Amino acid sequence: MPQSDSPYFQDHMPDNGCFGCGKDNPDGLKIKSFWEGEEAVCIWNSAPRFSGWRNLMNGGILATLIDCHCMGTAMAMACKSEGRALGTEPYYRYATGTITVKYLLPTSNVAPVELRARVVEVKGKKTVMHCDAYSEGKKTAEAEVIAIRVADSSQPSHFNPFVS
Amino acid sequence: MPQSDSPYFQDHMPDNGCFGCGKDNPDGLKIKSFWEGEEAVCIWNSAPRFSGWRNLMNGGILATLIDCHCMGTAMAMACKSEGRALGTEPYYRYATGTITVKYLLPTSNVAPVELRARVVEVKGKKTVMHCDAYSEGKKTAEAEVIAIRVADSSQPSHFNPFVS
Repeated sequence: MPQSDSPYFQDHMPDNGCFGCGKDNPDGLKIKSFWEGEEAVCIWNSAPRFSGWRNLMNGGILATLIDCHCMGTAMAMACKSEGRALGTEPYYRYATGTITVKYLLPTSNVAPVELRARVVEVKGKKTVMHCDAYSEGKKTAEAEVIAIRVADSSQPSHFNPFVS
Repeated sequence: MPQSDSPYFQDHMPDNGCFGCGKDNPDGLKIKSFWEGEEAVCIWNSAPRFSGWRNLMNGGILATLIDCHCMGTAMAMACKSEGRALGTEPYYRYATGTITVKYLLPTSNVAPVELRARVVEVKGKKTVMHCDAYSEGKKTAEAEVIAIRVADSSQPSHFNPFVS
């Protein structure tokens, strides 16, 4: 498979129709995540249909952004720690084990939201991350996310979770 | 305001454009929650755009359903404990303080998902709930949700969160 040199984690997930992070879902949120030093960053612009209360982002949409951003971060961190580029084999994909989101302030649904995640711990197939969300210069939510590696193309039992 | 006798919590939230629970959001999830004994139930049918992996529900969408179902449940529980019908004054609205979702199994994006929430504790403006999600006869996720009452039409400072 030809490798792109895109810095965005999601550009290295072919055939991904995921609502949150799939570049191949025309109706999805289509997040883009990238490294900025030790932090994985995602800046996203919402749309009116994703509001909760007027001009404020629906909390579930914010949780979706955080969740998918962290699944991409777990994958990217695995590549980084194995000293290889995004999109090189073996391909890993992660699923959420547990997510906790604490909402501190309302998040604008008009201004861009910025997510900043960092890996707290990697233990075997488990990656623990902390993620903060910022809106209009203030931290509006913080989350802990546990990702589990559920797909590994180096394993005989590997399945491609995106294509049945 | 004329009161409907609909059993669905969300039918008593006028001008609600929320992505998860707003009957007035044409692109939203439009959940409907109702009492079944002590449990608040929501049965929801997804659409292909809300998938994560193929034929499986995106985890953020499931979190959104749980979140909005529990905010409605907190409101309905307040009415119940005050011995009054849904949609009667004072009007209360809740916002999520913290949500934790533990994903146990994949949730189908093709079969209906069923949420069952119960109130664990009410302490002033705070309502704590537990919510389980079921898909194809199995429990696929469990959540703890803390709701905070942020709007109360009996208070002089009441704001209507739905209409600016």
